[in-house]
Amino acid sequence: MPCSIARALGVVGERWTLLILREIFFGTRRFDELRRNLGIARNVLSGRLDHLTEHGVLEKVSYQNRPVRFEYRLTSKGRDLYPVLLALLQWGDRWEAGATPPSLTLVHTRCGAPVEPVMACGHCGDPLAPSTTRARLRAERLRVPASPGYPAAHADR
Amino acid sequence: MPCSIARALGVVGERWTLLILREIFFGTRRFDELRRNLGIARNVLSGRLDHLTEHGVLEKVSYQNRPVRFEYRLTSKGRDLYPVLLALLQWGDRWEAGATPPSLTLVHTRCGAPVEPVMACGHCGDPLAPSTTRARLRAERLRVPASPGYPAAHADR
Repeated sequence: MPCSIARALGVVGERWTLLILREIFFGTRRFDELRRNLGIARNVLSGRLDHLTEHGVLEKVSYQNRPVRFEYRLTSKGRDLYPVLLALLQWGDRWEAGATPPSLTLVHTRCGAPVEPVMACGHCGDPLAPSTTRARLRAERLRVPASPGYPAAHADR
Repeated sequence: MPCSIARALGVVGERWTLLILREIFFGTRRFDELRRNLGIARNVLSGRLDHLTEHGVLEKVSYQNRPVRFEYRLTSKGRDLYPVLLALLQWGDRWEAGATPPSLTLVHTRCGAPVEPVMACGHCGDPLAPSTTRARLRAERLRVPASPGYPAAHADR
């Protein structure tokens, strides 16, 4: 699909994948630790790690020689997924926590405040909302009526 | 799972679900239009829409009486997923677009600039990165060593 959201989901759009990345972001990098923390089957974890490594989200690095042992580290491409996890964390805290308080709080070490992430415009810094953004399609997309991406009705008129 | 990311993925952690929400955010609200735009099987779409409605992400509203016709609208809980989609869109544009330029550009109507979303700290406004945030677990979580959530090793030490 030509849409970047669809492409992104082609790489990380599977529940285990994002939970594996959650673990790695917070410091778990080794196969057996990931398996234990997530309660995931060995073959499923192995498949997901291979998929993320093939797509350049993780790299497999040896941390010991005799015997050789590997760990999984985030690449730049992988670290760039941090906003996706922050957005999911914030939404889950707000809408799916129920009566239990959040088990995890992030602290912004620069200012010391608990993290309450805001998706802001990189140009003016204001928060971004559906009501303050407008979609604009590239012209050539409009000439492909049967495409499964964004239909022409979504474009500027 | 006690983690808010896991809970969020329990509601939206499936590829079709986020693509359906993408369509609805950009103005497609009716069953047959969603089916056509996404190229999704009728029963799969129906199941996903029911799931999102049951979880309060969408509401089913009649827009016509004879015969009765329904459309799906985002609730407040649904609109709050906008940062998740923006984060995926940005990551896909950056890392998965390949040689093709992004098919969709968002414009921030407040300032007129193309949207380049930044996940910022709600307190100080600085961009949030893994290197500038620290995870803090709630104390009671540390007493559950076999839990599949965040292990004690992730906590402040």
